[in-house]
Amino acid sequence: MKDIAISIDKRGVQIQRVGIKDLHVPLQIKERQGGFQHVLGNVSLSVELPHRYRGTHLSRLVETVFQWRDKPLSGREVRQILNQVGKKLDAEQAHMTVKFKYFVPKAAPVSHSESALDYDCEFTGAIGGDGFDFILGVEVPVTTLCPCSREISEYGAHNQRSIIRVRMRCARDAWMWIEDLVSELERLGSSEVYPMLKRRDEKYVTEKAYLNPKFVEDVLRDVILFLRSDKRVLWYEAECENFESIHNHSAYAYQCESRQDCEQS
Amino acid sequence: MKDIAISIDKRGVQIQRVGIKDLHVPLQIKERQGGFQHVLGNVSLSVELPHRYRGTHLSRLVETVFQWRDKPLSGREVRQILNQVGKKLDAEQAHMTVKFKYFVPKAAPVSHSESALDYDCEFTGAIGGDGFDFILGVEVPVTTLCPCSREISEYGAHNQRSIIRVRMRCARDAWMWIEDLVSELERLGSSEVYPMLKRRDEKYVTEKAYLNPKFVEDVLRDVILFLRSDKRVLWYEAECENFESIHNHSAYAYQCESRQDCEQS
Amino acid sequence: MKDIAISIDKRGVQIQRVGIKDLHVPLQIKERQGGFQHVLGNVSLSVELPHRYRGTHLSRLVETVFQWRDKPLSGREVRQILNQVGKKLDAEQAHMTVKFKYFVPKAAPVSHSESALDYDCEFTGAIGGDGFDFILGVEVPVTTLCPCSREISEYGAHNQRSIIRVRMRCARDAWMWIEDLVSELERLGSSEVYPMLKRRDEKYVTEKAYLNPKFVEDVLRDVILFLRSDKRVLWYEAECENFESIHNHSAYAYQCESRQDCEQS
Amino acid sequence: MKDIAISIDKRGVQIQRVGIKDLHVPLQIKERQGGFQHVLGNVSLSVELPHRYRGTHLSRLVETVFQWRDKPLSGREVRQILNQVGKKLDAEQAHMTVKFKYFVPKAAPVSHSESALDYDCEFTGAIGGDGFDFILGVEVPVTTLCPCSREISEYGAHNQRSIIRVRMRCARDAWMWIEDLVSELERLGSSEVYPMLKRRDEKYVTEKAYLNPKFVEDVLRDVILFLRSDKRVLWYEAECENFESIHNHSAYAYQCESRQDCEQS
Repeated sequence: MKDIAISIDKRGVQIQRVGIKDLHVPLQIKERQGGFQHVLGNVSLSVELPHRYRGTHLSRLVETVFQWRDKPLSGREVRQILNQVGKKLDAEQAHMTVKFKYFVPKAAPVSHSESALDYDCEFTGAIGGDGFDFILGVEVPVTTLCPCSREISEYGAHNQRSIIRVRMRCARDAWMWIEDLVSELERLGSSEVYPMLKRRDEKYVTEKAYLNPKFVEDVLRDVILFLRSDKRVLWYEAECENFESIHNHSAYAYQCESRQDCEQS
Repeated sequence: MKDIAISIDKRGVQIQRVGIKDLHVPLQIKERQGGFQHVLGNVSLSVELPHRYRGTHLSRLVETVFQWRDKPLSGREVRQILNQVGKKLDAEQAHMTVKFKYFVPKAAPVSHSESALDYDCEFTGAIGGDGFDFILGVEVPVTTLCPCSREISEYGAHNQRSIIRVRMRCARDAWMWIEDLVSELERLGSSEVYPMLKRRDEKYVTEKAYLNPKFVEDVLRDVILFLRSDKRVLWYEAECENFESIHNHSAYAYQCESRQDCEQS
Repeated sequence: MKDIAISIDKRGVQIQRVGIKDLHVPLQIKERQGGFQHVLGNVSLSVELPHRYRGTHLSRLVETVFQWRDKPLSGREVRQILNQVGKKLDAEQAHMTVKFKYFVPKAAPVSHSESALDYDCEFTGAIGGDGFDFILGVEVPVTTLCPCSREISEYGAHNQRSIIRVRMRCARDAWMWIEDLVSELERLGSSEVYPMLKRRDEKYVTEKAYLNPKFVEDVLRDVILFLRSDKRVLWYEAECENFESIHNHSAYAYQCESRQDCEQS
Repeated sequence: MKDIAISIDKRGVQIQRVGIKDLHVPLQIKERQGGFQHVLGNVSLSVELPHRYRGTHLSRLVETVFQWRDKPLSGREVRQILNQVGKKLDAEQAHMTVKFKYFVPKAAPVSHSESALDYDCEFTGAIGGDGFDFILGVEVPVTTLCPCSREISEYGAHNQRSIIRVRMRCARDAWMWIEDLVSELERLGSSEVYPMLKRRDEKYVTEKAYLNPKFVEDVLRDVILFLRSDKRVLWYEAECENFESIHNHSAYAYQCESRQDCEQS
């Protein structure tokens, strides 16, 4: 059976990434504690295509992803997958994104009732001329309470759910666990959010937020200071978005820096 | 050229709706004031298919929608469109949904600064054995402030953006303008939301919400009472959803009633 | 600490559903083979609120959902959850929806390469005056190839990915496994879709679709005939949507019937 | 009334972007022909925040957007808006994104029936140290037909809707109209897509696609060659995504290049 994909292409154009996108597959993610967690993975996986070939064999990418279905993933395994598809498809560059919801146990602040909160996470890995590159992305929900509203009002202050989004690259051989990153970030809002709160917990988070008012700018500045202070972080992109309770749009703040930028600040 | 669609089908199965879905088209919606508003329409339009035909001519549905591109729509025109496609396609039943964002001018409560708020709206029309049926749907953002949080806390109270969703059928020959429906509904939260608020407006809405705490249940009960009291309303489905500022999920309340249910309550 | 929720409400309005929505939680779903599958669940859970109470204790709903985190769910367990929250919250009616992606092993048609395909599924359960009600929902991707395009063209025929959506209620004490329902439905397109296809598989599915051209109307009629013929099915709602390769909108067909309608047809 | 936003911040952290996100507003977009088109705009607008201030006055950003509601926008007006908010808020850098669906008239290829196709578009503008920067983004739906499937199959070939996404920066003082960009790109699939096709049109597009089979790699290569050849293009990011008719995931190809990369290729 003729293989059109390997036929010669004469346009002379090398393509940076050719692959599959939005493949859903059940995966396992390594937990900090040593175990692993079953997640629903959304995978994109691609390789560079040299100018001389017309196409890539996409079925081999799908095949590779399914081989990793039963083995816990962390950055190291992402690298192995990329090396594997690079070899299989004779490509020097390969790129992968895995998106998943990850649960971390969370006890209510006063009653200590146990539940687990979901965080949208993303592993992005690449191999190529510069070796292995890995970016960890997390989205962390928090409560923010507006300092202006509190200051000018006789009582109360508007507050809302906000999302802190961070994507960051660690130094070679350094690693940050999702659990560590989200637990640092969720302390930076006016209060944390929880799946389950009893009345005494609700009193606690309400008062905590009121005593700790923060603009979207305040939250992002504290995120920036945290990321600058952690020497493992070589580069990051951070955003805070407030789903304003008094508007039908969001307030947001955004920063992108490399370690060099951090040092100079 | 052979027309497969009109070939005879022997399975003996009549289909209730065959048509097009998610067709985007620029439309005009009639405003209460007499003018019209340009909107981005998302249209689904279908007809019944008698058991003897294999298929419908979907291009005629698209053609009809584009003919209405430059004429302001209200319920009356939805009926005309349905009659038109019913005739064209020899169908006794036809069904249409038009979704669009609709803007209503909104002045800030103290500074009276002018802007316009967007509401997701939906016209659903049908013709068939029972004549013409029309359902108006709206989604209205409001602020809700939690009575429990306020009661048990020394200061502050958690609050959030909420959405009141209503779909309702009016009595024959009765009509409710989007402007009227959303202005009634948005008074039923703890406070209204606005696109633009100056500091003195922000003080006003913060204090208003604090003085007017409402559970999701409270909002929905007031929505129910409003809809029961308006004799034009023959049937409705209403929902309030709070995007909780202290959780990563929503609180919600839902009701569906006909006029008969209303009278008996 | 005062409990506002249980304070007396004087509006005299009973609410059909009050609860939580879009709570994400890791769940397990019972498989036909006897085991279970880890899934990412999206849960909505609500109870009726009698007119005399102002509010419900939503934290108890969250608590209940998390108690079921480690026990495989099927319709029976949905019923137990509903009975449990009904008792806890003194409600005669309760309602639950669980949405999740479910994977079923799928071998390529010629090479027999193994992978697994994802199906969006939904369990909807309710308890109340009429006992226990359960609805199973599935979304099944298939390929459809246009009979008209094939007939009128010298070569080729446009085809596309389509989704068959079914929600159905079984007779009391009857049960249909997700595995059984999706395997029946996916035979009803022009061809099935697969996560992984080798070249010889691709030849097979291409030719199969070409030899088996089906309008969206054809697919839905076959879905209807299948659902009418299965005596366990008391009621259903079925839709087929084609993401047309030659348009930027969809073609679709829809039907909703009860057993009585089926018998009369 | 105290203004917390202008209070002094001591953390010493300058923020790159602080602003509003997902504000919906009716806008007008300048058409190539000289007129303008009413669109539904989704606007994000932000300014840099110097380290000494605690916050920005977000209401002024909203106010500015609404002032432009009745004036047709192109790149030039985006620049004016950015200069305006920069002055108002004493910021040297400002950033804006406007997303909207834009319609371009489209006649069927044989019957010449008139309709209009919708394209998702995006204007991104920024002012700062390097002057004014502007990026135009478009998403163009096309049909792609698989060369491998065609080659190995006795009859037929799988095909599907695909999206070509391009974001590109033009040289200073150069400009590319949305109409020009999408009309170039939509010629690069196996066939174009249309809102309305009569049977003789359907025969034409079916046969055209069959005679013009293209992998996702082929489409992207032709997009790359087009963008390299247009000397106005200083930088671009291009992607083609095929919503595969035989899979439940996409195939895709991606490239990002500057003029310098183009020249060296």
